[in-house]
Amino acid sequence: MADSTQTLSSRLARLHQRMEEAQVDAYLVPSSDAHLNEYVPDYTRRRVAITGFRGSAGDALICRDGSHLFVDSRYHLQADDEVDLDSFRVHKLGLAGEKTLSQWLTEMERERGSLRVGFDPFVVSMQAYSAYQAALKSPDSSLEPVNDNLVDAVWDDQPPPPANPIYQLPDDLTGCGVAEKLSDIRKEMEDAGATLLVLTKLDEIAWVTNLRGTDIAYNPVFEGYLVIGRESATCFTRVSPPRDVTDALASLVSFEPYAAYADAMSRHGAEASGMVWLDPSGTTMGTRLMLHEDQKLLEKPNPTVALKAIKNETEIAASRNSHRHAAAAKIRSFKRLQDSIKAGETVSEAGYSQILYEEYASEEGFYDLSFTTIAAAGPNGAIVHYSDASPDVPLRDGEMFLVDSGVQLQGGTTDDTRTVIVGEPSQRQKEVYTLVLKGHINLAMQKFPEGTGGIALDALARTFLWNAGLDYGHGTGHGVGAFLNVHEGPQRITPRGADEPFKTGMIVSNEPGYYEAGWGGVRLENLYVVVPDDEMPRHPDGRKWLQMESLTLIPFDKELIDWDQLSGEERQWLEGYHRQVWDTISPMLEEGDREWLREACQTP
Amino acid sequence: MADSTQTLSSRLARLHQRMEEAQVDAYLVPSSDAHLNEYVPDYTRRRVAITGFRGSAGDALICRDGSHLFVDSRYHLQADDEVDLDSFRVHKLGLAGEKTLSQWLTEMERERGSLRVGFDPFVVSMQAYSAYQAALKSPDSSLEPVNDNLVDAVWDDQPPPPANPIYQLPDDLTGCGVAEKLSDIRKEMEDAGATLLVLTKLDEIAWVTNLRGTDIAYNPVFEGYLVIGRESATCFTRVSPPRDVTDALASLVSFEPYAAYADAMSRHGAEASGMVWLDPSGTTMGTRLMLHEDQKLLEKPNPTVALKAIKNETEIAASRNSHRHAAAAKIRSFKRLQDSIKAGETVSEAGYSQILYEEYASEEGFYDLSFTTIAAAGPNGAIVHYSDASPDVPLRDGEMFLVDSGVQLQGGTTDDTRTVIVGEPSQRQKEVYTLVLKGHINLAMQKFPEGTGGIALDALARTFLWNAGLDYGHGTGHGVGAFLNVHEGPQRITPRGADEPFKTGMIVSNEPGYYEAGWGGVRLENLYVVVPDDEMPRHPDGRKWLQMESLTLIPFDKELIDWDQLSGEERQWLEGYHRQVWDTISPMLEEGDREWLREACQTP
Repeated sequence: MADSTQTLSSRLARLHQRMEEAQVDAYLVPSSDAHLNEYVPDYTRRRVAITGFRGSAGDALICRDGSHLFVDSRYHLQADDEVDLDSFRVHKLGLAGEKTLSQWLTEMERERGSLRVGFDPFVVSMQAYSAYQAALKSPDSSLEPVNDNLVDAVWDDQPPPPANPIYQLPDDLTGCGVAEKLSDIRKEMEDAGATLLVLTKLDEIAWVTNLRGTDIAYNPVFEGYLVIGRESATCFTRVSPPRDVTDALASLVSFEPYAAYADAMSRHGAEASGMVWLDPSGTTMGTRLMLHEDQKLLEKPNPTVALKAIKNETEIAASRNSHRHAAAAKIRSFKRLQDSIKAGETVSEAGYSQILYEEYASEEGFYDLSFTTIAAAGPNGAIVHYSDASPDVPLRDGEMFLVDSGVQLQGGTTDDTRTVIVGEPSQRQKEVYTLVLKGHINLAMQKFPEGTGGIALDALARTFLWNAGLDYGHGTGHGVGAFLNVHEGPQRITPRGADEPFKTGMIVSNEPGYYEAGWGGVRLENLYVVVPDDEMPRHPDGRKWLQMESLTLIPFDKELIDWDQLSGEERQWLEGYHRQVWDTISPMLEEGDREWLREACQTP
Repeated sequence: MADSTQTLSSRLARLHQRMEEAQVDAYLVPSSDAHLNEYVPDYTRRRVAITGFRGSAGDALICRDGSHLFVDSRYHLQADDEVDLDSFRVHKLGLAGEKTLSQWLTEMERERGSLRVGFDPFVVSMQAYSAYQAALKSPDSSLEPVNDNLVDAVWDDQPPPPANPIYQLPDDLTGCGVAEKLSDIRKEMEDAGATLLVLTKLDEIAWVTNLRGTDIAYNPVFEGYLVIGRESATCFTRVSPPRDVTDALASLVSFEPYAAYADAMSRHGAEASGMVWLDPSGTTMGTRLMLHEDQKLLEKPNPTVALKAIKNETEIAASRNSHRHAAAAKIRSFKRLQDSIKAGETVSEAGYSQILYEEYASEEGFYDLSFTTIAAAGPNGAIVHYSDASPDVPLRDGEMFLVDSGVQLQGGTTDDTRTVIVGEPSQRQKEVYTLVLKGHINLAMQKFPEGTGGIALDALARTFLWNAGLDYGHGTGHGVGAFLNVHEGPQRITPRGADEPFKTGMIVSNEPGYYEAGWGGVRLENLYVVVPDDEMPRHPDGRKWLQMESLTLIPFDKELIDWDQLSGEERQWLEGYHRQVWDTISPMLEEGDREWLREACQTP
């Protein structure tokens, strides 16, 4: 429930007082938490508590003479709705002339001559700190770390931090013990000359320790820190894992309370003569400041990112299994949806979402969704991250319905998107759907030599859309964890930016789309695992050939396919894919659902 | 003519003496010259003079107890043939266990404890220097700049530097005066805070000054330096341009002798309180060392690279014109080749090369080739940079013939590759040729939004080859100058590395291929100019749509095309292209050649 205007303005007034005591002109309230999570626990929603704005991203800069909120294009309207416009100026990033927070700091400094900007070092990444630092030009300006978050001090009904049980994932789901993971990491540390590695991102900590938790929505992780030395490793957690787990890990990892992290790091800061490895994009200034200013640092992506990205056979098997269950559930949900519509019932976005949840939850090993289901009817499909499936928006005849969803289930994490038609499609809907599908297939069919990166593959999914004058504003693919976060790196498929070569065992999404305000959206997403293709002729340079194998096994809506626009190879791929869906999923279904799937997998 | 073994060993012995006098353990003799040219003038072929190895690339490290030559895979055999293996160890880069020059420095230092490596700072780029510097780990080791090249001192019959006339390119070919170019550059200098920009690459100097020369083979440039300040610019040349040219440029550029560069830079080094802009990949240590050690430097690609890459309308018109003439000549050469073969005559690689040269030279405005013609028959087509068209290798029935050639002609620079069949093609030849052609067409047809870089486009040319298990080991495209160097940046189409967004007015090659030792090679190369496509629907983000327009107008060998493997769109593109070739080039030809072209452009 949203806080009242009165509550918000009282908090803001008291924050101004705290700022005066702390002698700062401005105070940063970013949306990030201490572990730079994509989904944050409630107690860290400080930006919501002080601005009233509830979007997933957006940073506030509090000033006594008028505060600022910076939001991206997803939230231009919502921010105006939710904040008190007398207290906040909403900066709509992306609009002409709008300044980013960094640029605004420069602007304010120019106006005032100098600026003291306070911040909680535990919610600002080292990378963000560098950007803010660079924005302040005057020697009289400063970024002032303020211990004890000032919003916490005025947030009377702040929820407590999560303190949920931690459990161990069995070896038959992880396929690799903690000893081996630590040994691989220490090898990288030695090669890099690092004596200490500090992990602050929760999926990395969960991966290394083979532990999981429920502190964060959708991500099966727990709040903690993991400090890895050459000989020992210490994990700081809110709740100690069960005694049998700590006993079993005793020779590898010792456990200490979450609150002891700061002291332990300060000790390291005083002692460590070696080099401490921190990932500037994944570590907050809180950790940096506990180390001595002169501490030798190695600042680059830490080795768990690359190690975690390459799934072992056990993880891949568990992922395949999860995807089979997720597919069976989603297929049943579409059958139920079709039945309801045929029966003349009205189904809303939220109603379908509930059906899908029920089907997911009925699968053995179901643990949670892997993100908020996107169930977007008609024009709502054009909102790429539409996460508020509404009970008031019905699925209408002739409209497309975009369903992007996933689960955490028995060792695997799924993520898939299907766009289906309610009733009869228009020619334009078929045309656009088929262009998106052709791009999906083109990328899915592609064999490529090892060493090929995600930028080189991206255009294969866009080529047909581009030639028709269409495009989509998001990347084509992201990495996915094994019973971990649905978004992980380092691999991705995007038109530009950091390029990472694909390797056997990586899982990546393939999700081209098209969106048009007022008309709706199409997105077609499968997850694929990268596998070698040893039947290909020898590569001229002796490199391995790689290909993508689909983990997702859900039919594409053939009502929306313009079969004449498919090439022979595309048609062959699609028929083979539907055959594989049928062969794999039909044995998991009851008769009525099986019939529905048989029909869905048949080429007209 | 190659130097005798005796001459070479006498030079080497005297070089060892010079090294002893200079108190260095090793002396670097790279293949580069003072301007880091792709083609170097004879007087700078010091590595050839001291090793006997005549390849275009390969660096030597001279030591008194045994010297080293480092060559890439193109030259593994040739190096063994040409150097005295008693004096030189040939390091074959690319073979397992072989070390690069940098790695070898590290190795030698480890063996000896420390190492003093002498080098001529005017033939080692700042970038290469950093790499060698990093290879030496001991504080007792050093890279010692030795003034006056030690090879020059022992090379009795060293040719003199070129000192050819410099001439001015008229505005109706350049489309942009020197004043405007200097003003654009100074704007970039101001934005970057640089007070001085030093240009040492000859094509950049030629571009800024609108001057050309004949000091370098194939590149219409002259040896020189150009130093640009905020108010004045000085060009250092071997020969002064004609009086009317210097008079006309007097208010913009002053001219001084080439030899005065060092003194002038030392003066700047002593004075300049500002920041000097040097491109580390394009500037030798000679220039760096003339500046004060504490001189504030801006080390990044200089602004002429990006400005020169975007051709104005006049340059594009001149390029189109050059390509028409180049196409007419190449078409006539293929007609003559076919006539000779039909008449039962034997034509050699060199014989055809001569025919092509005659045809090029007969075109109005012909100036020079833009690089050594590659005329590779049969298996020689597998050697990507085959530059020794032989009078002893005949074109044989059933073999493919690969011709990669280009000219400098009236304001434009051309570069194209055609692969043709002698007699009847085999099924495999047609299959591979068609896969390469499909890749070429796929890339040529692609519309893409501005901001798209060369990495994203690369796979569009490889997709069909990859799916057949084939690939090529070179990039897909490079930038090309306007009556300048046939290779220029920053844009390129490659699977990885630096990514540069394409912009309207850039010229780029599209040259997929396939090579197989013993079998031969296929490469199909056109140059394209990037132009906006304003007939496309509005891009969702409002970005411009770009497309490629072919400058090259030469038919593809339809004998080698498996028409059944082309998609409808590919066939349509090819027919449209051949129509354009016919419409544009046929009016330039005499009757017999026109008949040949009519037939070549007809779809079977």
